[in-house]
Amino acid sequence: MSTILERKSVHHYTGQKIGIEAIDRILHAAMAAPAAVQMMPWEFIVITDDKILHSLAAGLPFAQMLPEAGTAVVVCAEPGKAAMGKEEFAVLDSACASENILLAAEALGFGAVWTAIYPDKGLIKFVRQQLQIPVNIIPLNIIPIGYPTGEDKVRDKYDPALIHWEKWQGTLITLSENNLHGK
Amino acid sequence: MSTILERKSVHHYTGQKIGIEAIDRILHAAMAAPAAVQMMPWEFIVITDDKILHSLAAGLPFAQMLPEAGTAVVVCAEPGKAAMGKEEFAVLDSACASENILLAAEALGFGAVWTAIYPDKGLIKFVRQQLQIPVNIIPLNIIPIGYPTGEDKVRDKYDPALIHWEKWQGTLITLSENNLHGK
Repeated sequence: MSTILERKSVHHYTGQKIGIEAIDRILHAAMAAPAAVQMMPWEFIVITDDKILHSLAAGLPFAQMLPEAGTAVVVCAEPGKAAMGKEEFAVLDSACASENILLAAEALGFGAVWTAIYPDKGLIKFVRQQLQIPVNIIPLNIIPIGYPTGEDKVRDKYDPALIHWEKWQGTLITLSENNLHGK
Repeated sequence: MSTILERKSVHHYTGQKIGIEAIDRILHAAMAAPAAVQMMPWEFIVITDDKILHSLAAGLPFAQMLPEAGTAVVVCAEPGKAAMGKEEFAVLDSACASENILLAAEALGFGAVWTAIYPDKGLIKFVRQQLQIPVNIIPLNIIPIGYPTGEDKVRDKYDPALIHWEKWQGTLITLSENNLHGK
């Protein structure tokens, strides 16, 4: 629970690379994600080569920190291997795998952040070209992983107004009011 | 890490309802998920009413366990509040929130499972009608949460063949082989 609540989007890294064993543990976490009808419609590209990280950063405005992070994982969705061959399931399942990567990085003391490729057609094309990804594979995001400088802080996004009880139109009652109703 | 690796899809529940405080903690975890450009394109419907759970189960073939679980959360995506107003970002962010719900349930000793509504148009329509959800809101899934009977076991889905190094076409080397290369 504390890892989930403490996870932060890390944009600043020390430059020190994480080790291969950490990458292995993080990818175990990724593949422990749920997937519709137990398919595994995901693949992972691990990038540690500084030249490739620089090339990617050059074309990805939101991933300028890639070289500084030193390591990155591109989470790829493969619709052909998803439930009913649906792109939506491939994307959903790969999103869950991505969240596991972010949480595993946090749990192990590293920093990470989801930088989006999908659904931007131009970014998808650029990353496919850079990493020689086939057209039936969707690069969903690129997640830099590294040692955080500590500058990036967790942000509390909890908002009880986004919780509905029993149905959408149900009164927006807070938890304390709900307690008054004997729940 | 152990919570991520031990998380399982729970289909069998004891029938005992989880408490309101557990629901509150689980929803805190949900809203700690990452979201594109820090938007919060999600809403949550908590259902504890047995009559509503039965009505939903009657129309959702994969959610027959809803009454037995006793509690459920419908994770809803709201494209109008997502980055660039894009449905894809609303769905991705809500998928991460859903994964946090599954992990939080596991961490607290409960069971849960993602039962899909999206992208099936018929199921989306059915759930919108049952819960009076507006048409601009996408019910992504319904997640039963309850006490697991213990019948459902974790499944190891780790597959090193799904890991690529440096680029897609890179040789599919295993971690041990990789170690031989001095990494």
